[in-house]
Amino acid sequence: MKKSIGILGGMGPMATAELFFKIVSMTKAGSDREHIRIYMDNNTSIPDRTAAILSGGADPVPALSESIKKLSSCGADCIIMSCNTAHYFYPTLQELSPVPIINMPQVTAEECRESFPGKTAAILATRATAQVGIYQQALEAQGIKSMIPNEHEQDILMKIIYDDIKAGKPADSYRQDMEYVLEELKKRGAEVFILGCTELSVANEELKLSLPAVDSTTSLAKAAIKFCGYELK
Amino acid sequence: MKKSIGILGGMGPMATAELFFKIVSMTKAGSDREHIRIYMDNNTSIPDRTAAILSGGADPVPALSESIKKLSSCGADCIIMSCNTAHYFYPTLQELSPVPIINMPQVTAEECRESFPGKTAAILATRATAQVGIYQQALEAQGIKSMIPNEHEQDILMKIIYDDIKAGKPADSYRQDMEYVLEELKKRGAEVFILGCTELSVANEELKLSLPAVDSTTSLAKAAIKFCGYELK
Repeated sequence: MKKSIGILGGMGPMATAELFFKIVSMTKAGSDREHIRIYMDNNTSIPDRTAAILSGGADPVPALSESIKKLSSCGADCIIMSCNTAHYFYPTLQELSPVPIINMPQVTAEECRESFPGKTAAILATRATAQVGIYQQALEAQGIKSMIPNEHEQDILMKIIYDDIKAGKPADSYRQDMEYVLEELKKRGAEVFILGCTELSVANEELKLSLPAVDSTTSLAKAAIKFCGYELK
Repeated sequence: MKKSIGILGGMGPMATAELFFKIVSMTKAGSDREHIRIYMDNNTSIPDRTAAILSGGADPVPALSESIKKLSSCGADCIIMSCNTAHYFYPTLQELSPVPIINMPQVTAEECRESFPGKTAAILATRATAQVGIYQQALEAQGIKSMIPNEHEQDILMKIIYDDIKAGKPADSYRQDMEYVLEELKKRGAEVFILGCTELSVANEELKLSLPAVDSTTSLAKAAIKFCGYELK
């Protein structure tokens, strides 16, 4: 019996679109009916995760929990969240979810180990994701050495995530900034980049960077397809 | 009070992805929380609409109805369907839906009247959509003269929709076929093209055709954004 997916989206809406598109385009299917049934709640009322973690902003758990209930009531057999930072709340959410939540940082770290064995990984993510160590822990669990951007580089990443991508600006408005951050990290020893924020997956697609990288959105899409009993294209 | 959208998708999944992407990218919003809440059921168990209409295939209404119930239970304030052919069942579905279903052929014909006044419209759609007259009626209601492809051209369109796009083939595999159909219709008097099948909206995006065209997916996305009380970008 094949399974269905519940996408807890809206964090942000463009990253949600990218995740949905990736699942559809990576599923081996010759017709509509060979595709995966996917429920989605593009919940745009979820308080900002970074603000909640770093500066005492509103708790996102009640809104996340409401979406999990809606998706599982629809019949979703698993939940996936298109936001790495939201995985800070993973233990709480998994506890209250009636179905498994596929852990994005974990499946991304697993793919990094398989595709880039022995390489040092630089974590490109929101400041909150970097500071609370979501990816450092996930990578360490796979035996991968990791590094994070310095304060200045992190400021630039935050600008790209919030002021450029989430605001719908074109790729050329943040190309130079992105390339600067990547070069600086390479100088300090980065051998592979973890695209640990779904907005940066969008940036990677739009800028057509040819990076040694593991894209968390792609890793999550692959893991969800396999969980549901479908084949990758 | 702003409203939310329920996308009755899966017909097909790639057209659903395109519709969702268009709504997100066309909504005027500066942050995640300024976007529209969207529920989606990418229901891949809906029987083929063309087969049901033309050759006595399984009735899609029960599956469509199940999705409408799920989406309205989640809280959707309107329903949109990413499949023109499914609009053959519109009167039945609207009757059983607790919320309004925005009629894609109708909003597309309205946009055609506004953007291409007085022009003859060629309807590019599935054979079922063409034969049952969904678009001819919608266009006539707006005072627009319309035409449909001949049998040979319709065969080619069906191949593009089913064997190329729904099967995930690259744009170059159907470019020549698409251009042939467009040229033939122009010779017979077509002045504007109605992309009346969401798979052909995908083709239009991928082939980057510079057609005088009204894309039903775009018209539907715009109408849904306005219905919910949001502004277009």
